[in-house]
Amino acid sequence: MSDTDVYARQGFGAQAGFGARAALLLVDFVNGFNDPALFGGGNIPAAIEKTKLLLAAARETATPVCFTRVVYAAHGADAGVFCLKAPKLSVLTEEAHASQVVSELTPRADEYVLRKTQPSAFFGTDLAGWLIARKVDTVLVVGATTSGCVRASVVDAMSYNFRTIVVTDCVGDRALGPHEANLFDMGQKYADLHECAHVIAWLKRQAT
Amino acid sequence: MSDTDVYARQGFGAQAGFGARAALLLVDFVNGFNDPALFGGGNIPAAIEKTKLLLAAARETATPVCFTRVVYAAHGADAGVFCLKAPKLSVLTEEAHASQVVSELTPRADEYVLRKTQPSAFFGTDLAGWLIARKVDTVLVVGATTSGCVRASVVDAMSYNFRTIVVTDCVGDRALGPHEANLFDMGQKYADLHECAHVIAWLKRQAT
Amino acid sequence: MSDTDVYARQGFGAQAGFGARAALLLVDFVNGFNDPALFGGGNIPAAIEKTKLLLAAARETATPVCFTRVVYAAHGADAGVFCLKAPKLSVLTEEAHASQVVSELTPRADEYVLRKTQPSAFFGTDLAGWLIARKVDTVLVVGATTSGCVRASVVDAMSYNFRTIVVTDCVGDRALGPHEANLFDMGQKYADLHECAHVIAWLKRQAT
Amino acid sequence: MSDTDVYARQGFGAQAGFGARAALLLVDFVNGFNDPALFGGGNIPAAIEKTKLLLAAARETATPVCFTRVVYAAHGADAGVFCLKAPKLSVLTEEAHASQVVSELTPRADEYVLRKTQPSAFFGTDLAGWLIARKVDTVLVVGATTSGCVRASVVDAMSYNFRTIVVTDCVGDRALGPHEANLFDMGQKYADLHECAHVIAWLKRQAT
Repeated sequence: MSDTDVYARQGFGAQAGFGARAALLLVDFVNGFNDPALFGGGNIPAAIEKTKLLLAAARETATPVCFTRVVYAAHGADAGVFCLKAPKLSVLTEEAHASQVVSELTPRADEYVLRKTQPSAFFGTDLAGWLIARKVDTVLVVGATTSGCVRASVVDAMSYNFRTIVVTDCVGDRALGPHEANLFDMGQKYADLHECAHVIAWLKRQAT
Repeated sequence: MSDTDVYARQGFGAQAGFGARAALLLVDFVNGFNDPALFGGGNIPAAIEKTKLLLAAARETATPVCFTRVVYAAHGADAGVFCLKAPKLSVLTEEAHASQVVSELTPRADEYVLRKTQPSAFFGTDLAGWLIARKVDTVLVVGATTSGCVRASVVDAMSYNFRTIVVTDCVGDRALGPHEANLFDMGQKYADLHECAHVIAWLKRQAT
Repeated sequence: MSDTDVYARQGFGAQAGFGARAALLLVDFVNGFNDPALFGGGNIPAAIEKTKLLLAAARETATPVCFTRVVYAAHGADAGVFCLKAPKLSVLTEEAHASQVVSELTPRADEYVLRKTQPSAFFGTDLAGWLIARKVDTVLVVGATTSGCVRASVVDAMSYNFRTIVVTDCVGDRALGPHEANLFDMGQKYADLHECAHVIAWLKRQAT
Repeated sequence: MSDTDVYARQGFGAQAGFGARAALLLVDFVNGFNDPALFGGGNIPAAIEKTKLLLAAARETATPVCFTRVVYAAHGADAGVFCLKAPKLSVLTEEAHASQVVSELTPRADEYVLRKTQPSAFFGTDLAGWLIARKVDTVLVVGATTSGCVRASVVDAMSYNFRTIVVTDCVGDRALGPHEANLFDMGQKYADLHECAHVIAWLKRQAT
């Protein structure tokens, strides 16, 4: 019996569906996660390229947009265990080039750019409240990496009972094995998986 | 270049190490996750068997112990998106056999048994505060499933800056592909991986 | 200059207003907080009496209802600092009469009864997610005590960006000085204050 | 029977005591909360003056120090309900003079300065994890205002099971009625109250 069969027999992998009003969450699409010498590589550049289309559609449909950046204080003032497991994270300080959103997806002045220090965009941030204030019930998740901050953010979005959609061609990872393995886990248990074109079409239908 | 090489070159996979005082967290070792007709199967029975040794060592060394159970209210009063992705979860009510800790690991009357509704043992629970009150800096994680509630709990334990140890032969999953893939992710980014025998030896050294 | 003038000059005390869909949160209306020999007294019985009307209106209008109870594990397994400040809290165990919702407000089988160990109904619970799943944007808060668990829950409801309404004749306290002082603080900074009759009229208008 | 008698009879007001290792939390001692034309006034200048002594003692004894600032994004990108209740809060942007720590208490380069948007220093921030990483069990709270962000932070510090100390002559408020009322509530239920001199003496004893 295949892994998928095991999950199907136990009732995993159902579709939760879209809700009525979405936000777009762009997880850690910053220079450092698009630089193979730092934390990038793999299919991340392709995900950024596809995300340009989705971001344009979000803006066109007045969908709330939130970008995340990993930002640590200088001098290790807020360093913790994550920086022990991955010491290079500490280069991601407020002014560092590596911690700025990639130029292909530059935030507009009125869009929210959220600082975080942990994998999940919800952990130690006010993202849940930001979504509540905007009457959002559905979170569209894109970004890097699939097996890291995307996965952690997806688990928390679902745990807060937001309908959670992973946009499969807008998430990327430095290595493809973990990318695929985490898409499997998320699709079975936490999120619905859809391609960018499907999500754009949904956004446009909702806006009319 | 292998996945492991990619991660190594980017500085992932460092050891965070043990701290000074541990707690043992047993994630969802309940009947329903040990029953292949519900959510069990794979190497979960073997993980339970090994955990008997670790639980005995924790008790012998006065290490704080916390068991988790997934518990939903009757009549869907607290059902959310997780129950849309995996509808059978709603059978796990307070009195159901499926939501009781397995008999091999029966909690003692003075041990903490935590109810939860989401993957992470920390989400919507007072586990962080429980650990703080007990001056714990290191969380030893065992349970089921590796790719589900164990992984989610490990990410949160690390995000709260607890040294996090996954006891590799005391975690299990219904399917081995996700089990292995998630051990890889956790070892690279969130936790140190050790076998039961190593952790028991550490507990005994600390206690003397 | 009076306290109220100081606050007014600094722009506090604005009305946030109601949103579009409310939930009713009944904080700790349990026997122990209605018993002057335990944690009750003052105007708590009057608040319970008025709340009967509001609960009936909530049920009539299909407004989601959540009751909270303070529940500690037996044998101090989850005791913390709150139990050091107020040691009698530890009598509030799962089966204790003192920790059951008062008979005047008995929950129906399909209503949510939330266990908590800390002042706020949101702290270490899944209440935020429960509200999100029900597409709530407005939380109507009643219960006991005004200066304790009501105040803490109101601060968190507002921090999550729910429109927060304190129903002034449905909250009570063991002593009137703290009751009044906390109504002032909440009205200035965190919540709109309205009487029961006003809130019932709003619920009925929304439902039509 | 006085309010204090009511509380005493119900077992409130016990001392939780100090733990073994403290951090100093300075809540919102920023220019805007020391300016009577914005959110300041009352006894806040006196609290800042006394806090200079406590901050010096914390530095001398290598006690971890955390300053908080209220910081909102420009253009209302993260505004929520708090800004509806107190609309002037939105002036507190990253670069605004009003949102910088007062010059009497300038943070050193290696001290942690935490941005927050809600009353509690813990809400939507990584403060709990920061304290855990530093093996802190006791939080010394100073700042402004007693009835606002200090109170909210104290409730959360206690809810996370940190021993919580309010330094009574190092907290201040724009109006004295709420200052006194909130010291009463906190002392009865959430924190031990001590003067600066007592806390400094404790810090020095612990350090030897």
